[in-house]
Amino acid sequence: MVNVIKTIPRCGDELLARYQGQASATIHEAMGRRNAFDPAIKPLDRSMRLAGRALTVRCHTGDNLMLIKAISMAQKGDVIVADMGNAVANGPFGEVLAVECVARGLAGLIVNCAVRDSQEIIRLGFPVFSAQICISGTAKATLGTINHPVSCGGVIVNPGDVIVADADGVVSVPLEEAEDVVDAADARTAKEAEVMERLRAGESLFDIYGYQKVFDSLNCTEEK
Amino acid sequence: MVNVIKTIPRCGDELLARYQGQASATIHEAMGRRNAFDPAIKPLDRSMRLAGRALTVRCHTGDNLMLIKAISMAQKGDVIVADMGNAVANGPFGEVLAVECVARGLAGLIVNCAVRDSQEIIRLGFPVFSAQICISGTAKATLGTINHPVSCGGVIVNPGDVIVADADGVVSVPLEEAEDVVDAADARTAKEAEVMERLRAGESLFDIYGYQKVFDSLNCTEEK
Amino acid sequence: MVNVIKTIPRCGDELLARYQGQASATIHEAMGRRNAFDPAIKPLDRSMRLAGRALTVRCHTGDNLMLIKAISMAQKGDVIVADMGNAVANGPFGEVLAVECVARGLAGLIVNCAVRDSQEIIRLGFPVFSAQICISGTAKATLGTINHPVSCGGVIVNPGDVIVADADGVVSVPLEEAEDVVDAADARTAKEAEVMERLRAGESLFDIYGYQKVFDSLNCTEEK
Amino acid sequence: MVNVIKTIPRCGDELLARYQGQASATIHEAMGRRNAFDPAIKPLDRSMRLAGRALTVRCHTGDNLMLIKAISMAQKGDVIVADMGNAVANGPFGEVLAVECVARGLAGLIVNCAVRDSQEIIRLGFPVFSAQICISGTAKATLGTINHPVSCGGVIVNPGDVIVADADGVVSVPLEEAEDVVDAADARTAKEAEVMERLRAGESLFDIYGYQKVFDSLNCTEEK
Amino acid sequence: MVNVIKTIPRCGDELLARYQGQASATIHEAMGRRNAFDPAIKPLDRSMRLAGRALTVRCHTGDNLMLIKAISMAQKGDVIVADMGNAVANGPFGEVLAVECVARGLAGLIVNCAVRDSQEIIRLGFPVFSAQICISGTAKATLGTINHPVSCGGVIVNPGDVIVADADGVVSVPLEEAEDVVDAADARTAKEAEVMERLRAGESLFDIYGYQKVFDSLNCTEEK
Amino acid sequence: MVNVIKTIPRCGDELLARYQGQASATIHEAMGRRNAFDPAIKPLDRSMRLAGRALTVRCHTGDNLMLIKAISMAQKGDVIVADMGNAVANGPFGEVLAVECVARGLAGLIVNCAVRDSQEIIRLGFPVFSAQICISGTAKATLGTINHPVSCGGVIVNPGDVIVADADGVVSVPLEEAEDVVDAADARTAKEAEVMERLRAGESLFDIYGYQKVFDSLNCTEEK
Repeated sequence: MVNVIKTIPRCGDELLARYQGQASATIHEAMGRRNAFDPAIKPLDRSMRLAGRALTVRCHTGDNLMLIKAISMAQKGDVIVADMGNAVANGPFGEVLAVECVARGLAGLIVNCAVRDSQEIIRLGFPVFSAQICISGTAKATLGTINHPVSCGGVIVNPGDVIVADADGVVSVPLEEAEDVVDAADARTAKEAEVMERLRAGESLFDIYGYQKVFDSLNCTEEK
Repeated sequence: MVNVIKTIPRCGDELLARYQGQASATIHEAMGRRNAFDPAIKPLDRSMRLAGRALTVRCHTGDNLMLIKAISMAQKGDVIVADMGNAVANGPFGEVLAVECVARGLAGLIVNCAVRDSQEIIRLGFPVFSAQICISGTAKATLGTINHPVSCGGVIVNPGDVIVADADGVVSVPLEEAEDVVDAADARTAKEAEVMERLRAGESLFDIYGYQKVFDSLNCTEEK
Repeated sequence: MVNVIKTIPRCGDELLARYQGQASATIHEAMGRRNAFDPAIKPLDRSMRLAGRALTVRCHTGDNLMLIKAISMAQKGDVIVADMGNAVANGPFGEVLAVECVARGLAGLIVNCAVRDSQEIIRLGFPVFSAQICISGTAKATLGTINHPVSCGGVIVNPGDVIVADADGVVSVPLEEAEDVVDAADARTAKEAEVMERLRAGESLFDIYGYQKVFDSLNCTEEK
Repeated sequence: MVNVIKTIPRCGDELLARYQGQASATIHEAMGRRNAFDPAIKPLDRSMRLAGRALTVRCHTGDNLMLIKAISMAQKGDVIVADMGNAVANGPFGEVLAVECVARGLAGLIVNCAVRDSQEIIRLGFPVFSAQICISGTAKATLGTINHPVSCGGVIVNPGDVIVADADGVVSVPLEEAEDVVDAADARTAKEAEVMERLRAGESLFDIYGYQKVFDSLNCTEEK
Repeated sequence: MVNVIKTIPRCGDELLARYQGQASATIHEAMGRRNAFDPAIKPLDRSMRLAGRALTVRCHTGDNLMLIKAISMAQKGDVIVADMGNAVANGPFGEVLAVECVARGLAGLIVNCAVRDSQEIIRLGFPVFSAQICISGTAKATLGTINHPVSCGGVIVNPGDVIVADADGVVSVPLEEAEDVVDAADARTAKEAEVMERLRAGESLFDIYGYQKVFDSLNCTEEK
Repeated sequence: MVNVIKTIPRCGDELLARYQGQASATIHEAMGRRNAFDPAIKPLDRSMRLAGRALTVRCHTGDNLMLIKAISMAQKGDVIVADMGNAVANGPFGEVLAVECVARGLAGLIVNCAVRDSQEIIRLGFPVFSAQICISGTAKATLGTINHPVSCGGVIVNPGDVIVADADGVVSVPLEEAEDVVDAADARTAKEAEVMERLRAGESLFDIYGYQKVFDSLNCTEEK
């Protein structure tokens, strides 16, 4: 097994641009309700949002050696997705690495552990989604992998997958579905806009979607 | 058992107005320390606060059919209190339903599961208190109840109960006690204002309340 | 055993002043990665930060009698560090006590349980770090200790220890190490500033710290 | 509000006898998947099982005064269902009270907090379902209620409800549905016995229930 | 994307036989400390242990349709590894399906959610490792995948991977490494047996492994 | 600071013998309800119980170097109490070290993290109380302390403290109070035996302790 894979597929800038304004929940629905990360993984600040190409890392719990390497390899628009072993008491990422990420133009970081220097990272405007904020640091002594598939937040991420994240959470889109999913998301958004217009005008979602039929089929009983 | 009850008691606007400025913790104390919801149920934004009349819903875990119906039945000043089965990975409520809630003049939503479109809901200014924020959606296929008593956040809520919620959490007041409780809350607030005045002037709470007597009765020993 | 100890060591104002600007994570590293509190203990508002001298309290779970006494004894610049038994559903501290703390010039409060009146405390600008926010209050009926060593957030704190807390969490410095630790922290901060300068100029942390040597020693394999 | 209600409805011994052999999961299904308690409430020993009539208690967190009273009022075949405020670090019940419960012929205890003397209770053979086992005791100083509706494990229990509990968890049956539910449970058990016979003979559940039709309706694709 | 893949690689019986006696912790170490599942996934009874070939399933949260299909496809010695979305309040597997699993000679089941009929499954002697035991059942209405890679317990499992599980937890071995790993495990076991012999004779692990050298290199100070 | 302290106070065998039969909950009450460890720390098998003299260790999270040293220094009747940083995904102790502990006559181990080889340790009959069981191992590369005070399970333990642990949990007794506490425990046990005798004869605890007086003082209202 080669530890560090360097060549990964990356979707084109035009396609990525279409993901920039998308909501994570819309993308999730547009894919048939797949690939939502564990909601414990949250942005440091709820205004943070990102869309980018996954560069995947697996580190040993409590060790950020591979993460440091991965950042040095990343390109503009990449999102580091790191499986650090779900250890919420370890903070392998802080201001120093955030400065490097910003210098390289990275789109963000998704980790299933903690980070530190949270206020400094917010000030840098670098989108970080983590399972906790903590003080404790990590070692730099054990190998892992770069650009192999990883399990993060309960979802398998392959290098090159499109990652969308915002205040609601994180979702990943397999590269080969990326075109179709964003089309479906746009269609869904357009439809919801129409529905919301009707709701503002006084209709109910219950009537618009005709749920009385579901009620009838389930023999729902109502007070007269 | 009738699934959907339509007629519920609702306290008058004047009484409800007296609850608008109340703090949840004060109401809780004024009732003899009852009916505080599980602190895991939090506002999407800590500036959110509400006082309203409970319209209760019980949904099957992962299914928001009854919630959609309940919103369509709600009146101005109602608070939807929904038992969704304590499933923090399900988000049965998002921007679309929030738009309907705002259109109908609802006072807010309390759920023991997650919601999504959190930023959009905050922008709409609709007070939502939930146990989590998540991406995953729900089905619309199973019956539950509307306006039966529900258990939410560890508290039994009856339709028509007065609900008060703010950054500290959620508390419910049985309708028949609503008048007495708000009187007691006002008295408590007035008394605390006096105490705080004395504290600002240099006194200690320990002395004001005479806790040395408790110390003496417990044989507290102090260094000379 | 004497319940209430009154005489505690307190570091000088000059030394304490050197801690005012320090980050909790930097102090933690400067001590050899010790004494980070459980990350579940968080500030009410992430802009809160403090550096102060520990006045320690141990209360019975769900009882704040000793906390009230401790506040009445505290001096300007003291931080109350209270072991309330890790009971996140109990709120022994609210606006009234916060007003007294501000009147006495306290530097802050660290508790391993919940607090209430969170918005009022934020408005007062009094730094509070707690494990939860909740509504439920406490009794005032059981003895504990003041200025004995306490276990809070998994760390032993002795009266007089220097406490530093910010958005990342809480850390304590034994009084006898306080001078050395702040020296080491300043040195670390200076070094990190240099490193960040080089990162902004395009270097990588991986290269700056020469981690290729670690890779080689571990026989890391890379795609050509 | 009267604190202590003495008169409660109790189903007949014959009906209760029909519940003795029932599995909690079967009862839950037979009621349309309602009233399963939070799975965190578990038996001290997995061989424990009970069916009995609910006598309900609400205690203040960390105070077992009402529980002691309730036990003194209970009759043969009663199950104490106690809302102790979801405080898993409080143990309001131990060997001494278990001895009284056995002497009075109680069917068991369900609590949403911890208990202690777990080994002694197991030896007594008294079925206890709790959210934790712990050492810490409680006070006896605050009023609550007896035989009012309670919220325990996320379910509303009324005095007189039939409670069934085993290694899988706890479920409650409203008294007015108790006859119908046990009929439905027996029917379900009989049907499952038949299905299991066919499975032992080599059939699959997928085929027995004809789920290929569901697959077809959902356009499931299979490798040839 | 094809939902159901039927052809999967399966290691030979001889190789699988070598895994039967292995401890999960030994296999984990022999692989370089990889692929340990989240320790929340535990056996129903601690005497349960298994070694088998992974047949992977991904179900929608709260829906066991694909699990039922997967069991119908499984062969002797297969272990079902199911990603059910980490929903510990859903029990998609009980006695009925366990009977089918036993009839087909399956080696066991690993799920990241709950199961029910726990006592009946223990009596059947079928090894089940789950994140919880609960009463609540599931729907059968949504598609997922069979024999695609799944994320379960934080680990990526591919169909055909060797799964080892015992009282300590679950570990997976990629099929292509299965031969090497079991060799390394045997070597490790032999070495540990020797070490334990010396410990029984009075030596210390500290001396056997020469950790004084580590102490010296770290400048460990000892009381004279 | 000296890392390793060798000389610790140890109570006499006669005193320790008096603790052998004591229940952890009784000792906790006899001390005025102090020093109960977090109930998350549980025995591997509920029949395990111990009374011994604390030998304290603080390890870096995920590193068991100091634990190995501590075991090599321990004497017959010692209990290792280790603060491993509350990291439930790390298992720093398994069969090999358990064999050494048994060879040296240790009384047991208390850790705030996980252990592995749980079944082998149970078979060895060595009492281990931990916060989890897991597969993952640890490094041996970082210094900590031996026989300094430690915080474990939320309690401060000093070397030489008497530790009592059983199925209900763990409690520690400061050495200087050990004589008085065991006297108080014996008195409490004798009194409870009497009370239980009366309960078996049909009295209620409510009457024996005269709680009607508390009811009266609190104005408890009862249904006639």
